[in-house]
Amino acid sequence: MLERSSSYENLRSLCKGVGHRLSGTKSAEEAVKWAKFKLNSYDFDTVYLQEISVPHWERGDVERLDWTDINGQLHITNCTALGGTIGTNGVLSGKIVEINSWDELKQIGRDGIEGKFVFFNRPMNPTYVSTFMAYGNCVDQRHGGAARAAEYGAIGVIVRSMTLKFDNNPHTGSMGYKKDIAKIPAIAISTKDAHDLSEALKSDNFELAKMKLSCKILDDKVSHNVIAEIKGSVYPEKIILVGGHLDSWDIGEGAHDDGAGVVQSIEVLKTFIAMGVKPKHTLRCVLYMNEENGNRGGIGYADKVKKDGETHIFALESDRGGFSPRGYSIDGTPSQLKKIKSFETLLSPYQLHIFDKGYSGVDIGPLKNGSVCLVGLIPDSQRYFDFHHAPTDVFENVNKRELELGAAAITSMVYLIDKYGFSVPLENKK
Amino acid sequence: MLERSSSYENLRSLCKGVGHRLSGTKSAEEAVKWAKFKLNSYDFDTVYLQEISVPHWERGDVERLDWTDINGQLHITNCTALGGTIGTNGVLSGKIVEINSWDELKQIGRDGIEGKFVFFNRPMNPTYVSTFMAYGNCVDQRHGGAARAAEYGAIGVIVRSMTLKFDNNPHTGSMGYKKDIAKIPAIAISTKDAHDLSEALKSDNFELAKMKLSCKILDDKVSHNVIAEIKGSVYPEKIILVGGHLDSWDIGEGAHDDGAGVVQSIEVLKTFIAMGVKPKHTLRCVLYMNEENGNRGGIGYADKVKKDGETHIFALESDRGGFSPRGYSIDGTPSQLKKIKSFETLLSPYQLHIFDKGYSGVDIGPLKNGSVCLVGLIPDSQRYFDFHHAPTDVFENVNKRELELGAAAITSMVYLIDKYGFSVPLENKK
Repeated sequence: MLERSSSYENLRSLCKGVGHRLSGTKSAEEAVKWAKFKLNSYDFDTVYLQEISVPHWERGDVERLDWTDINGQLHITNCTALGGTIGTNGVLSGKIVEINSWDELKQIGRDGIEGKFVFFNRPMNPTYVSTFMAYGNCVDQRHGGAARAAEYGAIGVIVRSMTLKFDNNPHTGSMGYKKDIAKIPAIAISTKDAHDLSEALKSDNFELAKMKLSCKILDDKVSHNVIAEIKGSVYPEKIILVGGHLDSWDIGEGAHDDGAGVVQSIEVLKTFIAMGVKPKHTLRCVLYMNEENGNRGGIGYADKVKKDGETHIFALESDRGGFSPRGYSIDGTPSQLKKIKSFETLLSPYQLHIFDKGYSGVDIGPLKNGSVCLVGLIPDSQRYFDFHHAPTDVFENVNKRELELGAAAITSMVYLIDKYGFSVPLENKK
Repeated sequence: MLERSSSYENLRSLCKGVGHRLSGTKSAEEAVKWAKFKLNSYDFDTVYLQEISVPHWERGDVERLDWTDINGQLHITNCTALGGTIGTNGVLSGKIVEINSWDELKQIGRDGIEGKFVFFNRPMNPTYVSTFMAYGNCVDQRHGGAARAAEYGAIGVIVRSMTLKFDNNPHTGSMGYKKDIAKIPAIAISTKDAHDLSEALKSDNFELAKMKLSCKILDDKVSHNVIAEIKGSVYPEKIILVGGHLDSWDIGEGAHDDGAGVVQSIEVLKTFIAMGVKPKHTLRCVLYMNEENGNRGGIGYADKVKKDGETHIFALESDRGGFSPRGYSIDGTPSQLKKIKSFETLLSPYQLHIFDKGYSGVDIGPLKNGSVCLVGLIPDSQRYFDFHHAPTDVFENVNKRELELGAAAITSMVYLIDKYGFSVPLENKK
């Protein structure tokens, strides 16, 4: 797979030919066409689309957050609207209150917040070795900041970008509103701008902030998951799924998130064909739509599985970037975990060392039913949040070998599950 | 160390302030001054220089390899003289014979080779997961190609760059001559140029090659290893060494090779001071000169250790790039290996999984005496040869967190060796 893989060229084609592809946009529909065409170009048994309804949010042309200091000097930040935010309907101006914890928000309360912007500036914790841990402990500000600040009468929300890198790139991502709580606009600024703004606030060198966003929440649209299959030779009714998500944020090219998972998932099926290995179980590659802002693809897929009475024995998602694979995060029964851990001796020579119980992935999550084993590929996480949801998540920032090794790590696991997996009755294991 | 490390800023200062630093050059002397100044800026007990004599080779102004096809079209390659080569003394022109194995060289023999350039085009094998394995199985062409081709009367040698990346960057590196065999010039060309040249040769679309190199082998010069120490509180006479090499090739900035090892080694001692941990053994940071083309620093250091009757119990070198650390390669006795493997449970939560017997490093290699335990830090190897000895080995291609995690991996190992290490008598282990 390190010699003849087409995953890198497929990723180039997706990133450069289609580009970013937010659910509901034209380019997302281009991506669906791209995926269908690509899957049809290989010798898979079936390629088909699953219709789903997706949210449709548009960024619009204008996104600005400027502030003036006490000398009247204008500071223009590197900013990006958070996905799902309302627009500002003109220019919104006001003071800023910096908040570094939920306790602080409560303490300052309505008296200190009403009529102002709330600036959530709690950074990702650099002392975690896993950057996903740091992200997980921080992203509540982005997801829920607007709704919680609105409860105290804030007029808008500014969030420090979710990255450990100190640079000028703003990182977008999903946010949501709460029923019966006012909707206020939300924007992310780069870590450097967050630092500068915080310094200005601390030293009383801040006068006024102005926010302008032309985002719109529009009516849902029709879109599709794109699916390909190789029929199982022994247990065609039992499905092993590999997948990633086709949609991406509307800045950058969605290269690591999740173009990598898309092309790796395709590569798994392609490798079975290229090696002439007929899988015992049905191998299904699912390229999900709408992971980023709704997970309608993941939910819709799982609903259909239930409705159709299909049996999935195993599902593996790659959605943590195209970096050197380190192992697997396993959400399964104790016996499934034990089975997968037993592969460690086979896989550790390929520098796959992590076989831990843990979270799998957003798209495959809804499949969880107590019997299917869900797995997330764990690549090295150090650089992921340098690019995640940022203009820098482009093809050039993916390393060919790292991407291909990820595909090989998924393929090896799928091969072992297909050969020795949970569903195979003992008498067939000889 | 992920919060307060200065290794990234130190690397910036070395790469941008000094730049590349080949032994014998002015900038190598700047690097010695930089290192001495930097080490003196921390609260170490001693900082001193060890004088060594180093080779002095100069690239000169001109390095060209052009070829014409049968239509008279000129092809200018991206090339770089190999370190240590003689110049061409004017323009050297001739036909090219492509060679992909030593057997092929022998088979073609003097009849096919005399008066021509030999083009060693055996690529690194992409199927090895460790790129160092692929490099090790390929670099004999660069090291020994000129001497072996000269035996058959070749006029010069062209070597495919040692990288798995398919791009336009030529990669330099050391080569050597053999006593009593003619010295012929040697040059590396980029992998893309190697591919194009090979295609032209295969399709008989090649007419003539011209090589021009103005390299010079000059008289040896005086240079220095730069050394800092924290005295041991219990066993001051027993030394734990950490090190990397200060010199680099004369293209790029020597960022991964081995600016990373230099700043990480400094960081180890700095962290002991910052944490207020008094080491039991003497901690010595050795920044070696001349790893790249002679290893005079490594040999000279080991000679002095022997002469002075010093005892080293442990030496760890970082010289495989500033990437996410994966573990350690251990060159020691079975009991030393066992001891270090026993740390695995302490270190694997930090994603350090490799604790294998293996090669340590060029600089510390000469210390080997049957009792000192030698260790090489093993970072993820996938991207190393993208940059190794190439113009792209610059500060910008080092990731801050990956660099810092490497420093943390070395520090943790040194801390454990100092606390529980081989030399501590059992009665002190309570």
